[in-house]
Amino acid sequence: MRPQDVIRKKRDGLSLSREEIGFFVGGITSGRIADYQVSALLMAIYLNGMNPEEQQALTEAMLNSGNILDFSDIPKPKADKHSTGGVGDKTSIIIAPLVAACGVCVPMISGRGLGHTGGTLDKLESIPGYRVNLSTNEFKQVLDEVGYAMAGQTAEIAPADKKMYALRDATSTVEAIPLIVASIISKKGAAGLDAMIIDVKVGNGAFMREEARAKDLAHALVSTGNSCGIKTRALLTDMNQPLGRAVGNSLEVEECINILRGEANEAAQPVLELSLELSAHMLLLANVEQTTEAAHRRLAEVLDSGKALECLQSNIAAQGGDPRVCDAPGDFLPLVRETVKVESPRSGFITRVDTTEIGHAIAAIGGGRVRIEDTVDPTVGFTSELKLGDQVRGGDAIGVVYCADETAAAGAARRIQAAYEIGDAPPNQPPKLVKEIINE
Amino acid sequence: MRPQDVIRKKRDGLSLSREEIGFFVGGITSGRIADYQVSALLMAIYLNGMNPEEQQALTEAMLNSGNILDFSDIPKPKADKHSTGGVGDKTSIIIAPLVAACGVCVPMISGRGLGHTGGTLDKLESIPGYRVNLSTNEFKQVLDEVGYAMAGQTAEIAPADKKMYALRDATSTVEAIPLIVASIISKKGAAGLDAMIIDVKVGNGAFMREEARAKDLAHALVSTGNSCGIKTRALLTDMNQPLGRAVGNSLEVEECINILRGEANEAAQPVLELSLELSAHMLLLANVEQTTEAAHRRLAEVLDSGKALECLQSNIAAQGGDPRVCDAPGDFLPLVRETVKVESPRSGFITRVDTTEIGHAIAAIGGGRVRIEDTVDPTVGFTSELKLGDQVRGGDAIGVVYCADETAAAGAARRIQAAYEIGDAPPNQPPKLVKEIINE
Repeated sequence: MRPQDVIRKKRDGLSLSREEIGFFVGGITSGRIADYQVSALLMAIYLNGMNPEEQQALTEAMLNSGNILDFSDIPKPKADKHSTGGVGDKTSIIIAPLVAACGVCVPMISGRGLGHTGGTLDKLESIPGYRVNLSTNEFKQVLDEVGYAMAGQTAEIAPADKKMYALRDATSTVEAIPLIVASIISKKGAAGLDAMIIDVKVGNGAFMREEARAKDLAHALVSTGNSCGIKTRALLTDMNQPLGRAVGNSLEVEECINILRGEANEAAQPVLELSLELSAHMLLLANVEQTTEAAHRRLAEVLDSGKALECLQSNIAAQGGDPRVCDAPGDFLPLVRETVKVESPRSGFITRVDTTEIGHAIAAIGGGRVRIEDTVDPTVGFTSELKLGDQVRGGDAIGVVYCADETAAAGAARRIQAAYEIGDAPPNQPPKLVKEIINE
Repeated sequence: MRPQDVIRKKRDGLSLSREEIGFFVGGITSGRIADYQVSALLMAIYLNGMNPEEQQALTEAMLNSGNILDFSDIPKPKADKHSTGGVGDKTSIIIAPLVAACGVCVPMISGRGLGHTGGTLDKLESIPGYRVNLSTNEFKQVLDEVGYAMAGQTAEIAPADKKMYALRDATSTVEAIPLIVASIISKKGAAGLDAMIIDVKVGNGAFMREEARAKDLAHALVSTGNSCGIKTRALLTDMNQPLGRAVGNSLEVEECINILRGEANEAAQPVLELSLELSAHMLLLANVEQTTEAAHRRLAEVLDSGKALECLQSNIAAQGGDPRVCDAPGDFLPLVRETVKVESPRSGFITRVDTTEIGHAIAAIGGGRVRIEDTVDPTVGFTSELKLGDQVRGGDAIGVVYCADETAAAGAARRIQAAYEIGDAPPNQPPKLVKEIINE
């Protein structure tokens, strides 16, 4: 078999066999197939797609390109959550302790922020001392002791995905559904999951802006996950405005701790609502609760009793972080006092938020990564108490930019101000947070 | 500008600007753009195409990626011929001396054989001592003295094309019309031509098997050539059987010399016919003759008087070859006596010839290149006195394989035997050699 013959087949819109896909993924892993051949195939897949059998074969080949973690001696169901990424999307930090406190083992392999989106690992690293680069043994130990562990993709997990992702990023082939699905499921599947809930974001702050395409992605994720033996469900959720109050690493961790402390304000409610919704589905999929009502009751218990907060605190301590952050987040997180108000240019109602632009504005001043090699400034961010449809008066604050560099802060504030559309009347109806549940 | 943004645009089916194309070609030439980004763009161009403006900009950027040879002090019109490649296609060796003998300067940049097709440079190198790797100065000197010179693409000529071609070959993106056009015109244009005739082969021995696609290619070549300031015309010619009598390097050179000596047999007539036709168009395009009749009269003169043969002989001498080959080709070319007859399995008429298979059969025993790095055996080949529609009796020779290795020869003979279809009745009409002349 020659790489160019496999490329030719996909180029001509034909289906690749399991053997051809295995040959290619094996060649990527071993380095026997040149990067320029891989990227040509990626573009052909981008433009000509893959059928469900190819999708399945690609995912399995990538999953099996590395080690599958074995947590079979932890006698609990294993479940995880994945989000396709958005702005202010911090639910992992809440869901992991919530669900772990309900007796589910959560081996969470997370990512870093890139472009306009944040990443769970970057957020967690704003906790002083917190380590995300755990060895497999450390990961397992934390998981066993605490009930959940958070780490990045190691070299042993889905190495084919790692190489492919770097090439996709450099060749504009990131957004292809078959490649997204294989990348997500191969990484998540390597943690040996029983169940997985996927938060597919849709809207102007998501990778998928159109609902139809987001739905296609959700269906492909669910069917491929299930075919790989992981009970999988997807929620289509709104990303037409930042999720919750804060965008930016320290600020988002602070918001999460406040939520688990029961001290979240009105603006943070959507984060709690979505976290509970996703967590409830995890409990159902993991078979620890049988009805939605029971799942929500159980979650309310661990939240109100402080058990979920305790679980977060144990995880922070186990992963090297300062656990006092849970008692007084404002004292132990790297936050700055320097702020610039984002003023509303006129009186009216918030009719549209260019969510991607807000993500980019914060990334540009150090809150995220413009390039993969950038380092992140945990102190930088933006908070807003307002939502789509809220009324605002000219000169009042839409929100506040946090940044020690005054010039940078002023620039970000201007970009964010322009990202808000203020109209004469509120929009017909605010977007529903959970748009659809996809089971197959 | 970032490479991935240009890739994204073409991926999404948008048109690239002249600046974007120039940026990419510049990056390919300098090595600043990675191979994996180039191959992703090539696949996107393959699948989404290019409009005439993009085609033009790509060709000019590739042409200007290297040196443009300057022959302005040779006071003659400059013209060249290009063929898209076939089996037994040896017309360059005849056309160059014919046209040069009529007072046209022919700076011919040729290629090597690959796959089932032969290459002019390989054929010429079967002449003992003949050198095709001339320096620019040597090339110019031969051109000035003899009227024509034959050489390969040097490192200075269209270096972007050289890199792109290697990547196209490894990523199955060779057959894209915009890439073929840019590759051909950028190389040919670097020789500073006034006029160019393009022989676009169509049929089962050509890269373009379907007439519609061959026609598209021909139109794209003509319009791009003309836009680059080269008066360009294309002939759509038949490649449903080997052109002429011989396939194989020494055997083809022998056939050419015999034609120029006026000693060609019946089977070689199509080579002469096509060479005269292409040459006549070159004289017209180069403005040295005004009518088709005058052009053919002039060509008949230089052929019958032996001037064209003299011109070939001078070129061979000037490029280091043994000029006695023109007096007695059989004595000075590396030919073998060992032959195997290809028998007709039954009586009937030749109804179809799998021309590509014949090319592959000869390449496989050393007459061509399976891989780009292979060396070529000049002695190996196949000759046939028969054409499509000819009658043959069972057991009679369809042709003869030349090869010193008996086992290899027998294998090639079997493959070639199977490539001939013998039917009960002749085909309705034999294919026309020149199917169409394309002027725009």
